[in-house]
Amino acid sequence: MSQSQLSEVLELASALIQRQSVTPEDAGCQNLMNSRLEKLGFKIEELFFTDTLNTWARKGSQSPHFCFAGHTDVVPIGDEKDWRHPPFAGLVEDGILHGRGAADMKGSLAAMVVATERFVSKHPNHQGSISFLITSDEEGPFINGTTKVVDLLEARNEKIDMCLVGEPSSRETLGDVVKNGRRGSLTGYLTVKGIQGHVAYPHLAKNPIHDVAPALTELSNKEWDTGNAFFPATSFQISNINGGTGAGNVIPGTVDVQFNFRFSTESTVEQLQDGVNSILKAHDLDYELSWTVNGLPFLTEPGELLNVTLDAIKEVTGIEANPETTGGTSDGRFIAQTGCKVIELGPVNKTIHQVDEQVCAKSLDDLALIYESILEKLLVKA
Amino acid sequence: MSQSQLSEVLELASALIQRQSVTPEDAGCQNLMNSRLEKLGFKIEELFFTDTLNTWARKGSQSPHFCFAGHTDVVPIGDEKDWRHPPFAGLVEDGILHGRGAADMKGSLAAMVVATERFVSKHPNHQGSISFLITSDEEGPFINGTTKVVDLLEARNEKIDMCLVGEPSSRETLGDVVKNGRRGSLTGYLTVKGIQGHVAYPHLAKNPIHDVAPALTELSNKEWDTGNAFFPATSFQISNINGGTGAGNVIPGTVDVQFNFRFSTESTVEQLQDGVNSILKAHDLDYELSWTVNGLPFLTEPGELLNVTLDAIKEVTGIEANPETTGGTSDGRFIAQTGCKVIELGPVNKTIHQVDEQVCAKSLDDLALIYESILEKLLVKA
Repeated sequence: MSQSQLSEVLELASALIQRQSVTPEDAGCQNLMNSRLEKLGFKIEELFFTDTLNTWARKGSQSPHFCFAGHTDVVPIGDEKDWRHPPFAGLVEDGILHGRGAADMKGSLAAMVVATERFVSKHPNHQGSISFLITSDEEGPFINGTTKVVDLLEARNEKIDMCLVGEPSSRETLGDVVKNGRRGSLTGYLTVKGIQGHVAYPHLAKNPIHDVAPALTELSNKEWDTGNAFFPATSFQISNINGGTGAGNVIPGTVDVQFNFRFSTESTVEQLQDGVNSILKAHDLDYELSWTVNGLPFLTEPGELLNVTLDAIKEVTGIEANPETTGGTSDGRFIAQTGCKVIELGPVNKTIHQVDEQVCAKSLDDLALIYESILEKLLVKA
Repeated sequence: MSQSQLSEVLELASALIQRQSVTPEDAGCQNLMNSRLEKLGFKIEELFFTDTLNTWARKGSQSPHFCFAGHTDVVPIGDEKDWRHPPFAGLVEDGILHGRGAADMKGSLAAMVVATERFVSKHPNHQGSISFLITSDEEGPFINGTTKVVDLLEARNEKIDMCLVGEPSSRETLGDVVKNGRRGSLTGYLTVKGIQGHVAYPHLAKNPIHDVAPALTELSNKEWDTGNAFFPATSFQISNINGGTGAGNVIPGTVDVQFNFRFSTESTVEQLQDGVNSILKAHDLDYELSWTVNGLPFLTEPGELLNVTLDAIKEVTGIEANPETTGGTSDGRFIAQTGCKVIELGPVNKTIHQVDEQVCAKSLDDLALIYESILEKLLVKA
């Protein structure tokens, strides 16, 4: 396929990929999107927080208020020599769009913009409102991105009713998986203290690695909850453990353990923290423990947004999509905390964050059709 | 005390400290000692292996063959600014000899040489033989030092019957502790393998930290032996544990554990290795395990060498010395493997390897008297 014969969606996706927007850079992506949205009557607010450009663009002021959310930033490319296609060229070859961000998530952004252009062109007097909440800080520390825009909207009491995040939710083929929620993520940073000493004189020391081992076993064996109809059981995983001076003859004074919960709506942060503390105390450990709540769990139960999305997928692709709440976190968690219904739908995620990130070109055209259909089902009613 | 009024022992100790012999440097120490031994009729062999100067000096060819063993090398000084006395000046002030090596073990070397000079002067026709086995590689990797000299002696079937190592054995005052053996030291390097993955998808991964924790508990709780009349029970200590990529959302693929046994003569290396393997296998771990035998245990049971040493200490200091087998390893372990009786006796070890290493000046004079008395008791008989 010659690059000059690209569809509208692929042309825009390719143009976005060519803008080298590694977190927290936006590199002109939002400007490109906003110039097109502005022509449709969107009111554009470019919101720069510290190092991060965000866009809040809205057309209309009525309910229902439907929002497309996404990010222009991409993860680093690693060593460019490892790529079979230049990572920032946005080339389409043999029906595949190549490049960093093709799947995560410049393809989705292009589909959102083109779908909205087509929808507004067909339905200039649609009901409700359409908005775009776009950040360039999703792959990074997520401090100056979506969460700050959400805070601003809350402060001025501007409510989103329904939100579609363009994260690449699909597993094998476009639309096979829709996320209607996400588990929460809670990280613990544990330091267990002992008394440093020489291995030849263990009675003068207290080995914190010996002391913590049975507690770790208990933590990793415990059933925190059994999940529910929408969520798998809460899981506990130790991601890092480090103790020792490097020397072979020294009993270390401390051992550090980092662990993470992915938790369902059956557990609260407080319950998990209490559970960990009670195990550590039962093992009589001298410890310090701090926590980071990376995200609270959210769930969009079956209802209009989810039904409409499943119907649109079925119409365009013929697939009966599967709603899931598994996987990592996304900015959807920040938006959901406002009481908004949130789903995530985007292309196949197999190559995201990898060398040779790519996506089926036709799937992006189909994604634009699905997005357009969702707008019609929500905002054009008899 | 003016430096010009030093005793013979302190004068030599100070001269040795002034030679900056940080491992593996000898910096002329052995030459200084050997020039004095040569005058007494010792046959000197300077043996240079790779980076390490060693001396084998022997006077006489008869049994019993008594050997003084020791090392001229010292550990680094750290930051010289932290020292209250210059570390390589060998100053005596208010009855204290200051400097790196004062206690470990240039003071002992000086006492050995002076004791031998006095003894030979009084008993030119003593029985048996006296030798010096001196290395400059005791504080380092102990590869090119005592062990190579011992190999050479074994190869030419030259047997030492009794050996006194000048390691600083004393705890509070000279002679309160004599080492009549040492525990063995065995280090294990364990890598437990799992399957790396994302913490959000634990069913696709296998967490080696979770898997190893109960095995570590069992290893650290196990009674390996109960020791015996001369040795405390064998101890197991984990010195280092490291697992994790640093990232909080990754289940690591491996975890590394380094552990050390200090073991009595009630356990063999093979028994300890078998015990570890059987626990690791019982926990169904996928692991790699390698070992370093840092030293086998040795024991000099009560007999002539120990009795003579205890008597000499009592005569000079009035102290009833306590034979012990605790503490770290020393080059005594290499010499003991030849079947030789080995004891360790030297000054107070409180400041060894520290800033402001120092030793009571009079204790070195007393040490020379004890060493001389041992020579008399062993090599001058009716």
